[in-house]
Amino acid sequence: MSAVPVYADIEAAARRIAPHVRVTPVLSAASLDELAGCRLHFKCENFQRAGAFKFRGACNAVWSLPDAIAARGVVTHSSGNHGAALALAAKTRGIPAHVVVPAGAVATKLAAIARAGAAVHECAPTLAARDAMAAELERTTGATLVHPFTDPRVIAGQGTAARELLEQAGPLDALIAPIGGGGLIGGSAIAARALAPAIRLFAAEPEGAADAHASLAAGRRVADLVPETICDGLRATLGEINFALLRAHGVEVLLASDVETVAAMRLVFERLKIVVEPSSAIALAAILRHRARFAGLRVGVILTGGNVDPDRLPWQS
Amino acid sequence: MSAVPVYADIEAAARRIAPHVRVTPVLSAASLDELAGCRLHFKCENFQRAGAFKFRGACNAVWSLPDAIAARGVVTHSSGNHGAALALAAKTRGIPAHVVVPAGAVATKLAAIARAGAAVHECAPTLAARDAMAAELERTTGATLVHPFTDPRVIAGQGTAARELLEQAGPLDALIAPIGGGGLIGGSAIAARALAPAIRLFAAEPEGAADAHASLAAGRRVADLVPETICDGLRATLGEINFALLRAHGVEVLLASDVETVAAMRLVFERLKIVVEPSSAIALAAILRHRARFAGLRVGVILTGGNVDPDRLPWQS
Repeated sequence: MSAVPVYADIEAAARRIAPHVRVTPVLSAASLDELAGCRLHFKCENFQRAGAFKFRGACNAVWSLPDAIAARGVVTHSSGNHGAALALAAKTRGIPAHVVVPAGAVATKLAAIARAGAAVHECAPTLAARDAMAAELERTTGATLVHPFTDPRVIAGQGTAARELLEQAGPLDALIAPIGGGGLIGGSAIAARALAPAIRLFAAEPEGAADAHASLAAGRRVADLVPETICDGLRATLGEINFALLRAHGVEVLLASDVETVAAMRLVFERLKIVVEPSSAIALAAILRHRARFAGLRVGVILTGGNVDPDRLPWQS
Repeated sequence: MSAVPVYADIEAAARRIAPHVRVTPVLSAASLDELAGCRLHFKCENFQRAGAFKFRGACNAVWSLPDAIAARGVVTHSSGNHGAALALAAKTRGIPAHVVVPAGAVATKLAAIARAGAAVHECAPTLAARDAMAAELERTTGATLVHPFTDPRVIAGQGTAARELLEQAGPLDALIAPIGGGGLIGGSAIAARALAPAIRLFAAEPEGAADAHASLAAGRRVADLVPETICDGLRATLGEINFALLRAHGVEVLLASDVETVAAMRLVFERLKIVVEPSSAIALAAILRHRARFAGLRVGVILTGGNVDPDRLPWQS
């Protein structure tokens, strides 16, 4: 695997993770198509193991390691879906997982990480403290760091969702996925360009965490924004390699507000009968806000995750 | 088609409705399997068109009619999913649909029926008024009555869901579906017995509408219970033909309380990431209450519908 993944890496990842991941269904709803003015094919990664597409990348990283190195375990920093996904991926290989989380992280998410069998290590809620603790764990345990979105093995694994979607849904004119650090859209862009060279590629980003949008506009990576959005899975800053992939594959970033995202989440609940996180629903929100971009097209939409507290639906608060 | 449907009728129904219905996915979750002590295969009819399995039976009835008779339309009485399903089925054939609803029915359900293009006729909230108005509509319009659960074409259509599930999930030891009037479990029993003669068949019924349970215990149809349950799709009284099918195929009725049903609905939301009505969730509730019956088995579960108001989740009220 090279530093920047290519399509062959995604094919290899698909073969590698096939025994472990779920082939998630693609759903659609006539009433949503009418509303959006295009034909929507929703790839339901909220049904993926551990509740999100993150399991694909984590699983590819874990199963890419040579036996001797794998035996020493893996380590990452994430208080969200990547942490739980890496924990579960490590479990599929029977190796230890260490997850560094900032003090004050959401209790239900921590519980999910612990339930999957990982050791949870709490650190001060700063980037420096987080990186220091992860590095310390690498040193002391010999575990391999699996970064949530810049690791090429992770990016290649995430790309398998778009590959599967294109196989399942047939020809698509456009593909949209949410963007946080850029691992999913990076892998998706590689896969989609290889399988459908003329496809239009979009990333959906919260207005309150619009660093990818700003980066493409500025022509350089903007890494100093402070995120403020309900989309807790999209607060990370775009990675270098991810920024390069966005530019290489001509991905356009579309913004949506939190209000639009919550409305889209409610629509998905009501029309598709499924549960998605705000960080997933933003893709539909972006389509509805920028509908002229999608008019009449066959659009693939990656619904990334469904880890939602049933007692705290955002449209009810 | 004979008065009591047989497996050939279900095969014919499957062919007839194939251009119109959705092949719904089968989902599972390791954490639910652990909880239940068996292997659960959930057939997601909440993703069916119009949001429930009811579309299968309605569609089979509508497309069974000869052209000249079909042209005069169809009529039914239902304030719930059957009404919306028949309206949509009629739309697929371009024929009129009339739906008789009791005064005071839920506004969102009526809106769904009207949205699907049916004429909604309000009557007084009694069985006599309902039947009189349906008969009157048959006379004046020439429309064909499609009863929600005693019509053999409807029963055969409902049976296609179990047939599909057995194809998708492979061998099953047991099958469970909710029971109201008995159209779904009737069709399911015919299909499952034909495809897997030794399969154990269960119906899940609310404690507050336990007429099927009482009927099997008494050896005669008990039709004078007054239902009181959150499962609004399961308040109907078991039909004659449906009672005969239960007995012929050795279906056992398992009860669950509304509290257990709401807890199961929340579990389905949290673990499967999907939205189901209480009338669907009762199947999981019955499994969890009667877990000894299912220990170690491969169990098919029909999740019947997902028409839920996002603002009124029963575990939040």
